[in-house]
Amino acid sequence: MIRRLAVIGVGLIGGSLARALRAEDAVGEVVGCGRGVENLETAMRLGIIDHYTHNIGAAVEGADMVFLAVPLGAMRDVFQAMCGRLASDAVVTDGGSVKGSVVRDCKAVFGDIPAWFVPGHPIAGTENSGAEAAFAELYRRRRVILTPLPETAPAALGRVEAMWQLCGADIVEMSVAHHDEVLAATSHLPHMLAYTLVDSLARMKENDEIFRYAAGGFRDFTRIASSNPVMWRDICIANSDAIGGMLEAFANELTELSDTLRRGDSDHLLKIFSRAKAARDRFVDGVEA
Amino acid sequence: MIRRLAVIGVGLIGGSLARALRAEDAVGEVVGCGRGVENLETAMRLGIIDHYTHNIGAAVEGADMVFLAVPLGAMRDVFQAMCGRLASDAVVTDGGSVKGSVVRDCKAVFGDIPAWFVPGHPIAGTENSGAEAAFAELYRRRRVILTPLPETAPAALGRVEAMWQLCGADIVEMSVAHHDEVLAATSHLPHMLAYTLVDSLARMKENDEIFRYAAGGFRDFTRIASSNPVMWRDICIANSDAIGGMLEAFANELTELSDTLRRGDSDHLLKIFSRAKAARDRFVDGVEA
Repeated sequence: MIRRLAVIGVGLIGGSLARALRAEDAVGEVVGCGRGVENLETAMRLGIIDHYTHNIGAAVEGADMVFLAVPLGAMRDVFQAMCGRLASDAVVTDGGSVKGSVVRDCKAVFGDIPAWFVPGHPIAGTENSGAEAAFAELYRRRRVILTPLPETAPAALGRVEAMWQLCGADIVEMSVAHHDEVLAATSHLPHMLAYTLVDSLARMKENDEIFRYAAGGFRDFTRIASSNPVMWRDICIANSDAIGGMLEAFANELTELSDTLRRGDSDHLLKIFSRAKAARDRFVDGVEA
Repeated sequence: MIRRLAVIGVGLIGGSLARALRAEDAVGEVVGCGRGVENLETAMRLGIIDHYTHNIGAAVEGADMVFLAVPLGAMRDVFQAMCGRLASDAVVTDGGSVKGSVVRDCKAVFGDIPAWFVPGHPIAGTENSGAEAAFAELYRRRRVILTPLPETAPAALGRVEAMWQLCGADIVEMSVAHHDEVLAATSHLPHMLAYTLVDSLARMKENDEIFRYAAGGFRDFTRIASSNPVMWRDICIANSDAIGGMLEAFANELTELSDTLRRGDSDHLLKIFSRAKAARDRFVDGVEA
């Protein structure tokens, strides 16, 4: 049971956590914190939060659980604003898509990794944002990756695990570096490809015509290019080493594929496409199972 | 009104044309031609075709309209089999995703481009295949690109246009080369990216784990990697110059993006992502409008 939950950033991610815990009667009081009055008023009206403040220090005061659901680029300032204001039994966790940068920001503010900090990343989301988009079932049967550090107190980790379990999530632990590599491959790289494809087509002279002949496959493929540009700028900056490496490796793969095409090596093409189809079909079966 | 339609390849594309024309009472008789007995029997049972043969020459005899809906790699053999068997008033058109290769195959068999041949490409499809997947509305409000050549008889073009209009399609004319460039950008390149991404992840040592942490965005992004590998091998071979060029240009874009990341140029990243999001949102609005 959480006595007082402070949600810093009451959007889809933060708001859904609050809703899920409320649905389980697992939280006494929820304090919201953010910049936009309108969004916070919406969160009040929807019963996601009990009250709100624009002051991060005030929001975390007396909270035994603090959830940071702000863009990666804002994490450092949030840690700074919390400094000296946390309750003695407070545990802090976050929902950032990159873990190395959050850990670096935390360390930069506190000097070392505090025992009460449990870096985390729920692999969940929709194309919608804001408090209005939040719903209690967002994390049900979704994976939440936690990346505790040697400094992390086992009790803090246990409390964060218990919280996500109440939301119906499946919890996985891995190292910070491994998280950032895995996410670079499965999430950050695909977003880069979709953004780059749409942008390069849009820069073509006949771009109106180009898009006119795009079909349903293009629509699905580029859906993630409609994601929030600020969020993705922050992710790129935060995970630039892993993403940069993935981009270079992928550019080499494309050059090789181009060579295969120009050689007319149809057996090799069939092998690549068949292997990819098999893996993708297995992946979909795995998700649906 | 079509007297006798010969559909060579009674799958989603060929079967849906027959169904659409039947729904409009615009065709007297439909002859199906293919290799698989089971699929042709299904097409009979569903009333898509009136009878069938495995012999292409026999199928086209007496037909005033012939539609080739076979894989690109089979086109040349189909032209060969039709040779000398076409009725004097026959018009032939096709549904191949690449037009340069179909025109080359036609020329190779007939010595020059016959006046009765109208190369075409309906931009429509679903993830399903076979006669069972065919439905009359597939082409409704979809674009059909026709790429007539200087040799094409205006009357032949007019009859093919009239046929697609009856299916509810929007008809666009462009040159063979332009078609192949546009499709390389909007369809062939995205398929290559999706296949290459899934294949490169599948080749990673920890591929089971990698796929486990992929989320909804990955699922949409890679949907097209579940496409038919044989069909895509054929498309690659048929349009290797245009696709090869696109792949090389795209590899350069990725290398540039990697440099931008490593430089930490967040303004430039935001510019790329914002431009892409705006273009993608416009594209979706355009499709839905």
